[in-house]
Amino acid sequence: MQRTQFGDMACSIARTLDVIGEPWSPLILRDVWVGMNRFDQIQSDLGISRKVLTERLNHLLARGVLQRRPYDSRPRYEYLLTPKGAELVDVLVVMAGWGDRWLAGEAGPPVLHRHRSCGRIGHAELRCEHCGEPMHAVDIEPLPGPGLPEPGQAAAAG
Amino acid sequence: MQRTQFGDMACSIARTLDVIGEPWSPLILRDVWVGMNRFDQIQSDLGISRKVLTERLNHLLARGVLQRRPYDSRPRYEYLLTPKGAELVDVLVVMAGWGDRWLAGEAGPPVLHRHRSCGRIGHAELRCEHCGEPMHAVDIEPLPGPGLPEPGQAAAAG
Repeated sequence: MQRTQFGDMACSIARTLDVIGEPWSPLILRDVWVGMNRFDQIQSDLGISRKVLTERLNHLLARGVLQRRPYDSRPRYEYLLTPKGAELVDVLVVMAGWGDRWLAGEAGPPVLHRHRSCGRIGHAELRCEHCGEPMHAVDIEPLPGPGLPEPGQAAAAG
Repeated sequence: MQRTQFGDMACSIARTLDVIGEPWSPLILRDVWVGMNRFDQIQSDLGISRKVLTERLNHLLARGVLQRRPYDSRPRYEYLLTPKGAELVDVLVVMAGWGDRWLAGEAGPPVLHRHRSCGRIGHAELRCEHCGEPMHAVDIEPLPGPGLPEPGQAAAAG
């Protein structure tokens, strides 16, 4: 679908964008996440053509973030998040937090996130897995990692 | 640039995708975040045309996530994250964590994230702003919020 091969870049952000780097894929994941598991539900929610939805579902199945299972004998399928896909939805959770804060305007957030374990409505915060303190982009120093090609090898890095 | 108006959907994820819903915009934000602030640096890193880069920079300036300031008298500009943009990079931080985990393979992460305050290399975790416990997508129940149009009003919701 993309001419540029984002998945081949030595960058985990670019590689993730190879999976959800156009708007329909993340919105399909969102729909499946909130319980719209069937083709017709997703199609009607997003208002896209059957062709585009089929294409995007196949893309998400191929990348291993969705799986499908038959729900009647015709067969028709319902779509479910794989563990890999469920973790990818964390990216959408952070997108939602940012959109709520910067783009929702006076109307307020269209959707609230209730934390199942404590029952409160709120947002997810980014915290360091080691010390537990806030770990936002501004708190991070990016350093070259083991998967970074030597200079002169391979494509765009970051 | 998009025919579908993601920014008009009653969904903070869709609205955020209106800002970074194609791969170049987030990769430009990534470059600016890691210190590539000048047009030529970004262009050479991403290997895109001047035309596309100019278009995408103008988009990000218009959405208020980048700002620019002259750095010599010609004038040439350097691009900086606004506070709104710096918070948006949190989405990329979570993308990077997912890509490191699921797509980096045996080579390992191309880039490491050092938490400035504790000095350790690691990832950001999502935690509830109230109780501090993990708050991943699977831990969240999405509920209708105040910004959700009544049924029959307006476009796709979520």
